[in-house]
Amino acid sequence: MTNRFDVLGIGNAIVDVLTNVNDDFLRDEGLTKGSMTLVSEEEAASLYAKLGQCIECSGGSAGNTVAGLASMGARASYIGKIRDDQLGSVFRHDISAQGATFSTSSALEGPATAHCLVLVTPDAERTMCTYLGACVNLTEDDIDPDTVRASGISYLEGYLWDPEPAKNAFRKAIKITHDAGNKTSLSLSDAFCVGRHHKEFLNLVKNDIDILFANEEEIKMLYGTDDVSEAAKQAQEDCEIAAITLGAKGCIVTSKDEIGYVQSRNVNKLIDTTGAGDLFAAGFLYGLTKDKSVGECGAIGNLLAGEVITHMGARPDIDLKKFVEQNV
Amino acid sequence: MTNRFDVLGIGNAIVDVLTNVNDDFLRDEGLTKGSMTLVSEEEAASLYAKLGQCIECSGGSAGNTVAGLASMGARASYIGKIRDDQLGSVFRHDISAQGATFSTSSALEGPATAHCLVLVTPDAERTMCTYLGACVNLTEDDIDPDTVRASGISYLEGYLWDPEPAKNAFRKAIKITHDAGNKTSLSLSDAFCVGRHHKEFLNLVKNDIDILFANEEEIKMLYGTDDVSEAAKQAQEDCEIAAITLGAKGCIVTSKDEIGYVQSRNVNKLIDTTGAGDLFAAGFLYGLTKDKSVGECGAIGNLLAGEVITHMGARPDIDLKKFVEQNV
Repeated sequence: MTNRFDVLGIGNAIVDVLTNVNDDFLRDEGLTKGSMTLVSEEEAASLYAKLGQCIECSGGSAGNTVAGLASMGARASYIGKIRDDQLGSVFRHDISAQGATFSTSSALEGPATAHCLVLVTPDAERTMCTYLGACVNLTEDDIDPDTVRASGISYLEGYLWDPEPAKNAFRKAIKITHDAGNKTSLSLSDAFCVGRHHKEFLNLVKNDIDILFANEEEIKMLYGTDDVSEAAKQAQEDCEIAAITLGAKGCIVTSKDEIGYVQSRNVNKLIDTTGAGDLFAAGFLYGLTKDKSVGECGAIGNLLAGEVITHMGARPDIDLKKFVEQNV
Repeated sequence: MTNRFDVLGIGNAIVDVLTNVNDDFLRDEGLTKGSMTLVSEEEAASLYAKLGQCIECSGGSAGNTVAGLASMGARASYIGKIRDDQLGSVFRHDISAQGATFSTSSALEGPATAHCLVLVTPDAERTMCTYLGACVNLTEDDIDPDTVRASGISYLEGYLWDPEPAKNAFRKAIKITHDAGNKTSLSLSDAFCVGRHHKEFLNLVKNDIDILFANEEEIKMLYGTDDVSEAAKQAQEDCEIAAITLGAKGCIVTSKDEIGYVQSRNVNKLIDTTGAGDLFAAGFLYGLTKDKSVGECGAIGNLLAGEVITHMGARPDIDLKKFVEQNV
């Protein structure tokens, strides 16, 4: 049976609230640059009140990846929890507008749609504070088995491991995916997130994940090494495919037979790195759906990551299908 | 007594929902490029569903002007109606974050915070469809006499003439302003808006407005002439000061003693003209608060309009105080 979807993304459905800050602000707030911190509704409100003017855009790690895939013309689907509020409508609109299928029902009560305060420093690095809100109510019941079975790859974000019920949703999705003979994929999301759930992530990667995404810090944290090449070798042993992003330098890709380094092209205009990893994953997964080699997949990933960092926000703001056709 | 505020803006409090469309889309939807159309909640929802991914930013004509003034360090205040919903919080945050005082209470029931679908075509022109929502509940009661009396200039947007109760709020503000010996200012807002309320606007301008803002189309529509110089002469007769924006060409400014043309500098990067008129008004009014000549005020207006059109959204995204200091 042909799959209805190339990729199903499962993640925390979040609207980003972006603004520019300077390094002193991060220091005064005790925030670690480049990290994602979970905050309560009150902490989010208190931080928001200190921020300058913001813009709001849909975000969420797997949501960004799915939006990127849909923008390239891949058949993409999404599972995540919003509330029936204004930011929820924004999230639902944007992911659907890119052509992705998003049929998770909205919560009719409980916490508001999640939002993430994204603080962009002059070096274009982003530091995030997330109020999970409605995301914490993503449960097993939201994992529609038919959708999972109908998707060639189920892509999960590590952040899902933070809200407890989502963990069970995550496990259910993995089981259905493998029972159907499909592939599981995981993004490690954030070094602190790996730290928070270190043992569980290591078990997941060794036993349940076919395609692994990580950046340099995350993979080193996972394998407890300072040597990214060593970490890459371990990822190669644990997973069928792994892609490790190296920021401006490009990525390391592994399959059972090879480990390779794929250099990225120069980016002319660096504005905001939010979504770089997510769009890398979109490009890489898109390559896989087109039966490209991991090296070619890495090149498409680099290309998309290089695009998204030239503007504020983590969603593509151009037609990625044309962009990929013109550049690959 | 010294005024507490240099400028009080009174307007429709709106969150903008911005996206890129092509000219065919406008034609298919029967929209006139560059105009603002009022739509029902259902019409807004139906149009939104046809749009690609959007970003949300605070907007509203007078709101943009006030945000610009506050960004330059002017003492600015704002009156407008939002609901106690998520977009309302966004609006309140953003205008306060720029340093403006916004103390109008939020509606606890009734329509949602207003939003405006801003369709930006490849020529950077914007076409707007506005759902007024909570704005229609701005009434006389929201016009705090103390704030009006304490403001050197009360700046009103013509759009306020659309929701009926706001008209009375508008009239109340004018009376208090003049009774206190302060100045009234009006932006004609939109040629169709002038068309909708032609006689009333002409009466207003002749009898109640000290400082008039209009673009070329609006002023021609107001005075029923095809000759902008002729229209400028009439504005000079009717108002103490008038500023007529001419798009990329600059502006015509008038005072009782002079009519002059102020050329604008070249803009390198034209992205989105949303807010050009509003930021022109901010710059011009800022000049007036600093006792500049109308020619100098026009130059600051041109400068700010030239800045806001280099990015998506109608609010300043740089520190305008520094920008003006460096460029004037």
